[in-house]
Amino acid sequence: MGIVLGPNQYGKAEVRMVHVDRSTDVHRITDVNVTSQLIGDFSATHLTGDNSDVIATDTQKNTVYALARTGGVGTIEDFALRLARTFVGPYPQVTGARMAVEQFGWDRIQTPDGPHDHSFVRGSAEVRTTVVTKDGTDPDGERVISGVRDLVVLKSTGSEFWGFPKVPYTALVETKDRIMATSVTARWVYTGTDLDWDATFTLVRSTMLAEFAQLHSLSLQQTLFAMGRAVLETVPEIGEIRLSMPNKHHFLVDLSAWDLDNPNQVFFAADRPYGLIEAAVQRDDAPVDPAVWQGVPGFV
Amino acid sequence: MGIVLGPNQYGKAEVRMVHVDRSTDVHRITDVNVTSQLIGDFSATHLTGDNSDVIATDTQKNTVYALARTGGVGTIEDFALRLARTFVGPYPQVTGARMAVEQFGWDRIQTPDGPHDHSFVRGSAEVRTTVVTKDGTDPDGERVISGVRDLVVLKSTGSEFWGFPKVPYTALVETKDRIMATSVTARWVYTGTDLDWDATFTLVRSTMLAEFAQLHSLSLQQTLFAMGRAVLETVPEIGEIRLSMPNKHHFLVDLSAWDLDNPNQVFFAADRPYGLIEAAVQRDDAPVDPAVWQGVPGFV
Amino acid sequence: MGIVLGPNQYGKAEVRMVHVDRSTDVHRITDVNVTSQLIGDFSATHLTGDNSDVIATDTQKNTVYALARTGGVGTIEDFALRLARTFVGPYPQVTGARMAVEQFGWDRIQTPDGPHDHSFVRGSAEVRTTVVTKDGTDPDGERVISGVRDLVVLKSTGSEFWGFPKVPYTALVETKDRIMATSVTARWVYTGTDLDWDATFTLVRSTMLAEFAQLHSLSLQQTLFAMGRAVLETVPEIGEIRLSMPNKHHFLVDLSAWDLDNPNQVFFAADRPYGLIEAAVQRDDAPVDPAVWQGVPGFV
Amino acid sequence: MGIVLGPNQYGKAEVRMVHVDRSTDVHRITDVNVTSQLIGDFSATHLTGDNSDVIATDTQKNTVYALARTGGVGTIEDFALRLARTFVGPYPQVTGARMAVEQFGWDRIQTPDGPHDHSFVRGSAEVRTTVVTKDGTDPDGERVISGVRDLVVLKSTGSEFWGFPKVPYTALVETKDRIMATSVTARWVYTGTDLDWDATFTLVRSTMLAEFAQLHSLSLQQTLFAMGRAVLETVPEIGEIRLSMPNKHHFLVDLSAWDLDNPNQVFFAADRPYGLIEAAVQRDDAPVDPAVWQGVPGFV
Repeated sequence: MGIVLGPNQYGKAEVRMVHVDRSTDVHRITDVNVTSQLIGDFSATHLTGDNSDVIATDTQKNTVYALARTGGVGTIEDFALRLARTFVGPYPQVTGARMAVEQFGWDRIQTPDGPHDHSFVRGSAEVRTTVVTKDGTDPDGERVISGVRDLVVLKSTGSEFWGFPKVPYTALVETKDRIMATSVTARWVYTGTDLDWDATFTLVRSTMLAEFAQLHSLSLQQTLFAMGRAVLETVPEIGEIRLSMPNKHHFLVDLSAWDLDNPNQVFFAADRPYGLIEAAVQRDDAPVDPAVWQGVPGFV
Repeated sequence: MGIVLGPNQYGKAEVRMVHVDRSTDVHRITDVNVTSQLIGDFSATHLTGDNSDVIATDTQKNTVYALARTGGVGTIEDFALRLARTFVGPYPQVTGARMAVEQFGWDRIQTPDGPHDHSFVRGSAEVRTTVVTKDGTDPDGERVISGVRDLVVLKSTGSEFWGFPKVPYTALVETKDRIMATSVTARWVYTGTDLDWDATFTLVRSTMLAEFAQLHSLSLQQTLFAMGRAVLETVPEIGEIRLSMPNKHHFLVDLSAWDLDNPNQVFFAADRPYGLIEAAVQRDDAPVDPAVWQGVPGFV
Repeated sequence: MGIVLGPNQYGKAEVRMVHVDRSTDVHRITDVNVTSQLIGDFSATHLTGDNSDVIATDTQKNTVYALARTGGVGTIEDFALRLARTFVGPYPQVTGARMAVEQFGWDRIQTPDGPHDHSFVRGSAEVRTTVVTKDGTDPDGERVISGVRDLVVLKSTGSEFWGFPKVPYTALVETKDRIMATSVTARWVYTGTDLDWDATFTLVRSTMLAEFAQLHSLSLQQTLFAMGRAVLETVPEIGEIRLSMPNKHHFLVDLSAWDLDNPNQVFFAADRPYGLIEAAVQRDDAPVDPAVWQGVPGFV
Repeated sequence: MGIVLGPNQYGKAEVRMVHVDRSTDVHRITDVNVTSQLIGDFSATHLTGDNSDVIATDTQKNTVYALARTGGVGTIEDFALRLARTFVGPYPQVTGARMAVEQFGWDRIQTPDGPHDHSFVRGSAEVRTTVVTKDGTDPDGERVISGVRDLVVLKSTGSEFWGFPKVPYTALVETKDRIMATSVTARWVYTGTDLDWDATFTLVRSTMLAEFAQLHSLSLQQTLFAMGRAVLETVPEIGEIRLSMPNKHHFLVDLSAWDLDNPNQVFFAADRPYGLIEAAVQRDDAPVDPAVWQGVPGFV
């Protein structure tokens, strides 16, 4: 009996890198935030401080830069796969890796002479994400979980909430018309590792947005599930999607003390507290192994 | 002799409000953050806690909502002017006001059936700003200072920096080609109070972006001044513009230890420290009274 | 075959509450951030928008306040247990709950007349945390996972890092003396639900700090494991502890260009990237069911 | 007539530095964030991109480190003065400087063997600040403005607010007992440049805290002014103090719908909006030149 090391991982977090593709005068930039984590037998350093198996986190950082130099960045999914394969395989002590990449969007600056060759302006605050896990003990052990965060959306009508039970401490008034606003965090599991990542991401994003817009909503739960279902229906290469959607409350301001009505026009946008709805949408005929979510920020 | 009250102001900060214009089925939303501040003779509350002159900050908040209900929000400049006029004049103890409004941008969600009537997605992270000051003791005492913040831009080439003096502790290497990136905060003083605020804002923004893109830069200072000058040349109704532009350093990664060159392709995007360049661009034939900047976040 | 609802939870997040115990003139304040989440059969609202089983998130918020009024807050562990028991049991559709509470520390203001009765100053930025999960289908289904976050520590010497392998892209120089700094996030699983929570928290915190201080460190991994082991050795009621410790790099500044040495005196404190070391420390004779970590922010 | 350069400044912002005093085995650490800004004739770089007068911001950063190496950091006031004197004087184009330093507090870790020699834990989140300005054209042109920010305090009783006028849109209910909470930002001007900075800071801080605690408050304005007055009365070397104090609202939760009273025990701590009270407290017999506040974050 005794005290032992359990699951563990280590690496370099938040390597902020910008890659410039200068193959033509029309530059393309890729702006990413890379977190590399290795999994394996690292008992020695934990138990005795013997680092002979520890691939330094500084080395992991350098590898990120070197891979970008030798092969470009490309899509964040392919880059994370390349990064994982660089570490899982060559080193016996490294049995797995978890590579997370975030990508920030840039648009070309529009000038009177057209879109500029090498000048850019940051686009939306939303962030494209991927987490690639590679289990070196399994020939089929690569898994790509992509997603988006900080995708902020709002409906100014077309949202109801009523019919909930009047249990103790219930005071909420039913409504047939409210603002519904949320900041979508979504993560979806691909069933393959060789897809057209950019096209698929664009399709998933537009599918979620269209469903959010077009569904007349009876609850944020219904909207969340519909968004997830639409993605699974549209993209066969996705096995499961998880969504975390805060209910960013917009409270109708009561102006009746001053003889003013307020027919859903003036709202207070609250910060905290907020509702928080989180769910997985799955295929019942092809379930995804829940283990793939381990260590991936899912509902949290 | 003694200890006395100096300049002071008070109010309600960060009233987060969303206004929905439902005049047609195609809703329009205005998402703002309003800070109301009153200036005047408020000695009694400071010295003795006598609040008989203190228009409560809660009242200022309610006024924001009520004005939005009775007249909509419209442009943030007009809204801030309306708000200032509500307090300066009717109350003898209120001799001035400083009303600051920030506006967050939203785009319509694109669906297969076209842009949606009442569903929106947050656009760029940049924020449109205005600060309106009204001095009740001066018949011409209204001043509108508008601006933008968090306008993040980057050039992947077309930027040099060399010719600086080699004084003690200088180690920087000269460069004829670097990434130049910054997050523009700009504030400009209008000479009038009755303009087409939306059109002017759009023109200032596009003028700054085009100048940033098209100028081959020898220093961030040169770029800053050129952006300011272009604005003054383009918009006669602007008397002065102040810009604060951090130099968001992108350091070329040295990969030579592994026999890799790096011809301006792979960069580390640093957080801190950063350069910080701040300057005012003015008209020498029609200077703006420096006092208008008092209490307005300018260079800081 | 089809598309189905997977795991899900919902509730009210970040209910910011301050409770004042006024039972004597010497007030005591408890400042918390409560997130309530319910788990169960909520298919109807997801699939059809039928909310008849949905205990409104607003109701959950009101319950937080009402429980504080009827029984005070006490320790965050007991409060979270009370909150979970309020929802799991009475309602057939609610089969489980996950209640998270954060607590912010306050000190009494010291005056010339001694510590003040009812005036306080915020103490350290560190936050005490708990997550209580209750599985209504299991008579023994209550679990308390407490912790701390933002506990920032630094050693100015007594830390080495060397002996790591020189694999491709390794450039890091070995060191026998460096600054080691980290921001500890720890979570530990209690084996019971009826402990002296305050005393135990204080003991865990002081045990971790003493171990961090006193261990001559050969790697951050070694320090992390030693801190976890010390906790398990000291507190028998803890079954497992997980630690996430960023390596907040402090780089020695190279001043040799100006004929200045720098014997570990002047350091640049970097923001990003940072190392990130995460591990669980466990008892091999009494393992904790890994399922208790589901949905609890663990390594992420 | 034309477009000209107005006021401007430039430098390196947020140089994060930790200095370790290893003169004995009992180390002392100084953790600071330094922003260096130079003022002078920098027209050439703005107008033509000629950098021959531009002392690179990288050079300013290196100077921060070098000064720390050659003379330690000491107090942030003395360090900022040394930094300003390094640039103002030797270089004809540099006519002034504005050096801002923030300091973060650390406590020694307590171990069973006493306070540790070289291990520290971050203390309170509050930050000690200074801004030193030096005008090279004035033999008496050095000015030290020190301060504190994020000093968060709360009174659970002993605060009233009533007697305010019932103007349009007033709905606030008068109260004889409320929570008063704020996050103090204070800046005070020293009349000299050669003081015992540490002792004075400690005295100012304790004076403000004691006054906040002991004054039975009729308004936040009254508390703010009393805090400022107490500082001026206690520290003759301070010429003026400016305070910015948000009213961090704590709203009493209405539980009457469930037959629960709430005698000032359970509060909702709101984020936004918040009241914001800002004022200067001055000596009428020895006024401070308002120009010293130029470019110093004062009320904003």
